[in-house]
Amino acid sequence: MQQRSEETRNHILQASQRLFSTYGYDATGVAEICQAAGVSKGAFYHHFPSKQAVFLKLLENWLEILDGGLRAISQGTQDVPHILLQMSDILTEVFQTADGQLPLFLEYWLQASRDEAIWKATIAPYQHYQEFFTALVQRGIDEGSFRAVDAHIAAQALVALAVGLLLQGLLNPRGADWSQMPRQCMQLFLDSLTPKNTGMEVV
Amino acid sequence: MQQRSEETRNHILQASQRLFSTYGYDATGVAEICQAAGVSKGAFYHHFPSKQAVFLKLLENWLEILDGGLRAISQGTQDVPHILLQMSDILTEVFQTADGQLPLFLEYWLQASRDEAIWKATIAPYQHYQEFFTALVQRGIDEGSFRAVDAHIAAQALVALAVGLLLQGLLNPRGADWSQMPRQCMQLFLDSLTPKNTGMEVV
Repeated sequence: MQQRSEETRNHILQASQRLFSTYGYDATGVAEICQAAGVSKGAFYHHFPSKQAVFLKLLENWLEILDGGLRAISQGTQDVPHILLQMSDILTEVFQTADGQLPLFLEYWLQASRDEAIWKATIAPYQHYQEFFTALVQRGIDEGSFRAVDAHIAAQALVALAVGLLLQGLLNPRGADWSQMPRQCMQLFLDSLTPKNTGMEVV
Repeated sequence: MQQRSEETRNHILQASQRLFSTYGYDATGVAEICQAAGVSKGAFYHHFPSKQAVFLKLLENWLEILDGGLRAISQGTQDVPHILLQMSDILTEVFQTADGQLPLFLEYWLQASRDEAIWKATIAPYQHYQEFFTALVQRGIDEGSFRAVDAHIAAQALVALAVGLLLQGLLNPRGADWSQMPRQCMQLFLDSLTPKNTGMEVV
C-alpha cells in the first residue's frame, strides 16, 4: 500500500515536470497534472497541498542530487584545484541529461521574480553554494594551492561562471563542445587562483 | 505627424515592456498593450505586425545600447585588461537601471526555448559576443597583456561570467555589493590571463 502511494507521488512529480517544461508553470493546472499522471484530484491533494508545492519539490529533489554530487567530490583527498575540475564535470552531466529541461530552470527564476515563496526556495540555494565555494576556496588557500585571494569573490565568480555556462549550454546545445567547455573554463579560471611565481599547472 | 507616429511607437514599446515584465509574455495580449499604451489596434498593427515583433524589438533596442557601450569602450587606447575592467562596469549600470526588468530577461530565454524565431534573436547575440570577446582576448595576447591562452575558451568564460553575474545580481539585488562585484570578479579573472612570471597587477 505504501509502495503504491510512493508510485502515485512519483507519477505526479514526473507528469508535472513534463508539463511545466512543455507548457510552462502558469499554463499548467492541477487538472492537467492529474490527467497526465493518471491520478484523481483527491490523490493529488493527498500528496501535495498545491501546484506550487509540486514545483518546489521538483526543485528540492534536483538540488539534493546536485548537493550530494558536490559533497561527495569535496570529501575526496585530492587538492582543491582537482576537486574543482571534477566538479566542473557535473555541468557536462547536466548538459547530457537535461534534455528539454531548460524551460523548467528558467521557470524557477521567472516565478521567483514574481512569488515570494518561490524566490526564497530559489535564492536560498545560491547563498548556500556561495558559502560552500567560499569554504572550498579558503581550503585551497590554506593547503597552499591558491594565492591569498578574497575567497568570497572567488566563490561568487565560480558560481557565476557555472550558472552562465549552464544557461548557455542549455540554450545553445550545439554552440560549443559542451562536453569539454566547463572543464576548460574551470582550468582557465584556476589559473587566476594559483600562485604567480610557481608556474604550477593543474593537469 | 511623423513625430506623433514616433510617439505612438514608443508608447507601445514602453507599455509592452511594462506588461511583459509584470504579467509575462504569454499572459499579455495585443488588446492589453493597446489599452495600456492608449492606442487603437489599428495604430498597433500599423507599427508592428504582432506581439512577438514588439517583444523582439525591445530585445533589439536593449542589445543595441549594450553593443554601443561595448564598442565605445573597446575603441579606447587603453590596454585590453583595462578595457575589460571598464566593460565590467556596464553590469553595474545594468543592475542600477534594470529595476523590475529581470522577468523580461528571463522571458526572452524562456520563449527562446519554445519558439524558433525568438531563439534565433536571442542566441544570435551570444554568438556575436562570443566572437567579439574572442577578438578582444586575442588583441590582449598580441599586445602582450595576456598569456597565449585559447582566446575562444577565455571568451566563453567571460561571457558566462557576465551572464551568471547578471542573473544573480538581478535575482538577488541585496545578496552582494553589486556595485563592486562585477569589477572584482573581472579583476580576479584577469589574473588567469596575465603572464605568470611578471607579477603584473592590473589596478
